[in-house]
Amino acid sequence: MYNHTAFALGANRSCIRELFEYGRMRAGIVGAENVLDFSLGNPSIPSPPEVNQAIEEILKDTDSLLVHGYTSAVGDLQTRQAIAADLNERYDASVAPEDLFIGCGAAPELTAVLHALAIPQGEVVVIAPFFPEYRPFVEGAGMTLRIVPADIPDFQIDMAALEGCINSHTQAVIINSPNNPAGTVYTEKTLQALASLLRKKSEEFGHPVYIISDEPYRELVYDGAKAAFIPLIYENTIVCYSYSKSLSLPGERIGYVYVPKAAADSAQVYAAVCGAARRLGHVCAPSLMQKVIARCAQLRPDLQAYDRNRKALWQGLVDAGYEVAKPEGAFYLFVKAPGGDAKAFSEKAKARDLLVVPGDDFGCGSYFRLCYCVSYEQIQKSLPIFRELI
Amino acid sequence: MYNHTAFALGANRSCIRELFEYGRMRAGIVGAENVLDFSLGNPSIPSPPEVNQAIEEILKDTDSLLVHGYTSAVGDLQTRQAIAADLNERYDASVAPEDLFIGCGAAPELTAVLHALAIPQGEVVVIAPFFPEYRPFVEGAGMTLRIVPADIPDFQIDMAALEGCINSHTQAVIINSPNNPAGTVYTEKTLQALASLLRKKSEEFGHPVYIISDEPYRELVYDGAKAAFIPLIYENTIVCYSYSKSLSLPGERIGYVYVPKAAADSAQVYAAVCGAARRLGHVCAPSLMQKVIARCAQLRPDLQAYDRNRKALWQGLVDAGYEVAKPEGAFYLFVKAPGGDAKAFSEKAKARDLLVVPGDDFGCGSYFRLCYCVSYEQIQKSLPIFRELI
Repeated sequence: MYNHTAFALGANRSCIRELFEYGRMRAGIVGAENVLDFSLGNPSIPSPPEVNQAIEEILKDTDSLLVHGYTSAVGDLQTRQAIAADLNERYDASVAPEDLFIGCGAAPELTAVLHALAIPQGEVVVIAPFFPEYRPFVEGAGMTLRIVPADIPDFQIDMAALEGCINSHTQAVIINSPNNPAGTVYTEKTLQALASLLRKKSEEFGHPVYIISDEPYRELVYDGAKAAFIPLIYENTIVCYSYSKSLSLPGERIGYVYVPKAAADSAQVYAAVCGAARRLGHVCAPSLMQKVIARCAQLRPDLQAYDRNRKALWQGLVDAGYEVAKPEGAFYLFVKAPGGDAKAFSEKAKARDLLVVPGDDFGCGSYFRLCYCVSYEQIQKSLPIFRELI
Repeated sequence: MYNHTAFALGANRSCIRELFEYGRMRAGIVGAENVLDFSLGNPSIPSPPEVNQAIEEILKDTDSLLVHGYTSAVGDLQTRQAIAADLNERYDASVAPEDLFIGCGAAPELTAVLHALAIPQGEVVVIAPFFPEYRPFVEGAGMTLRIVPADIPDFQIDMAALEGCINSHTQAVIINSPNNPAGTVYTEKTLQALASLLRKKSEEFGHPVYIISDEPYRELVYDGAKAAFIPLIYENTIVCYSYSKSLSLPGERIGYVYVPKAAADSAQVYAAVCGAARRLGHVCAPSLMQKVIARCAQLRPDLQAYDRNRKALWQGLVDAGYEVAKPEGAFYLFVKAPGGDAKAFSEKAKARDLLVVPGDDFGCGSYFRLCYCVSYEQIQKSLPIFRELI
């Protein structure tokens, strides 16, 4: 007598986690240095040194009861002020502290926003390739997931296909740029077209179609690319941000939801996010980490190591004959599987202790994903095997 | 077009939070020292010094990528091993690391367990007085809340009333001992009677009726009282523990779920807890704090300050003529409101800048709650006002 959907989600690990655990098992047998694991998006550059310095300073200069005590459910005011100031300096965005809700990373922030927007028969559109956990998050909120097929090979958005997925039940479109798994950054042109389409649809249906912008990779861009601040392009945007990748703090569970005042029903949606989070068990984001962010919100990651990996892996794959777009963001390459079957390719690679994630769960089964947040050495060791596998 | 239940939960703060915010507002006007705030259960004794020492050591002796990186969704093995070892030493309880799920404190652990046990038409029984957030947690999981009236004045369990609330749809009974708000610790006799009743009902209905034991106050007991380890009394018990009170880490969001192997459908329920948590947005519990618990699981709080407060406040209230049971646990006194209307009494007290929480939201409107996790001085200052108010 238990919930069978929950059981299935708990008993069946995601394909990514499954590969990662397999890699750990193999590492025990053949040695960690001989497992070329490109499966997990776990940052490989450490947090900026200011993060640990901030922790040490906070322990010294702040009363222990305050360091570890409850904060307001929406987060410490100082933390929200620091984030608002940083966003306003970078984007001239008019973010106010009261528009921000400090959350425990993108995953619970997305669930809170989805539960806040959940209405009977509500639908949420995602754009392939997409983060597989969107499905349990959307369905857990009682809404229906609709998938826009991937815009191969550029991985921007096929606007006609998107339009076909939107109807009067559509509450939101989730976007994720820079994208996991494709590494692509949506262009200004893509985003403007998206905004136009959603404005048209909102008018047609007489209610807003929100963008939920899932932004753990906002700061991870290369070659001078810019990840736009989506609320400045489309007013009905709710941002879910995480410091997991930008400050290499994925285990610490800290980020924020931003509900712009310009968004439709802004105050109500903000309150609904608070209420949905409360109902899901949110009390506050980790207190010490909130205080770290209050001191470190302006820090940016040092991307040199990722960029070096990106270039080496991309060039090596292209030279070997793989089809792969040069990604401008995140730390992923999305590669066309030789023969077109990513699962079969992943299995072949696995037999050589080279772990790559087939794109099926991302809604794009002809591609596989490589996380290049690994050592440069691992990339060098993998290229001969990639050459043999094609 | 947003979720109205979520909006209502977000727009209307809990009565406790409302009073707390009022207290902060008044502190700005009359001075913090003149607001006698007994509203919020925020620990007033700092974490044991070993906690901050552990943080400093971890920053020095552990690779930053490991300190702040993703852990397994169920938590670091070392953390689960440390908790299991501590429980086994104290209770001879056969806890294994794989029975533990490291969560972000009791609230999200309760929601994960409730979603894991949610079945169509499922019901959950709570025993007044009870923590008000149980209602949104149970209803958020799609189940119906049934309330057993308070067993006044002892605040044990009225077994006949409980039996009347259990039917074939009952999935679980939530218990909370030591209790918020009554401060009572269930006696061995109460727990044995509860176990007998639930075994009888489980047999009658052909499915287990679980106890969900919400245990943030397990370590906060006085006068030599003992908080029993419930799984040793009733096999179908799922424990939700938090370090919020025992190590004064309420803001850090760290605790665990324990699903004993002896519980019915143990493996399935454990997997369902993992799956439900995943669906609600759980990725892992805060990583640094997991590593702190791995080093500090055996620590106990120094309760001297709470005990001094408890005795002084209890004695002062009794001397003034209030009816109040002497609580053996937690850091709450639950006091019969003079005249029997706790809301009216709370308003009268509020006019004197003395903040007490009426018991209505706890399911017991003739009592009010006092949190004595405050300064001793505040207790001394409040007693003359309490004498005047009766």
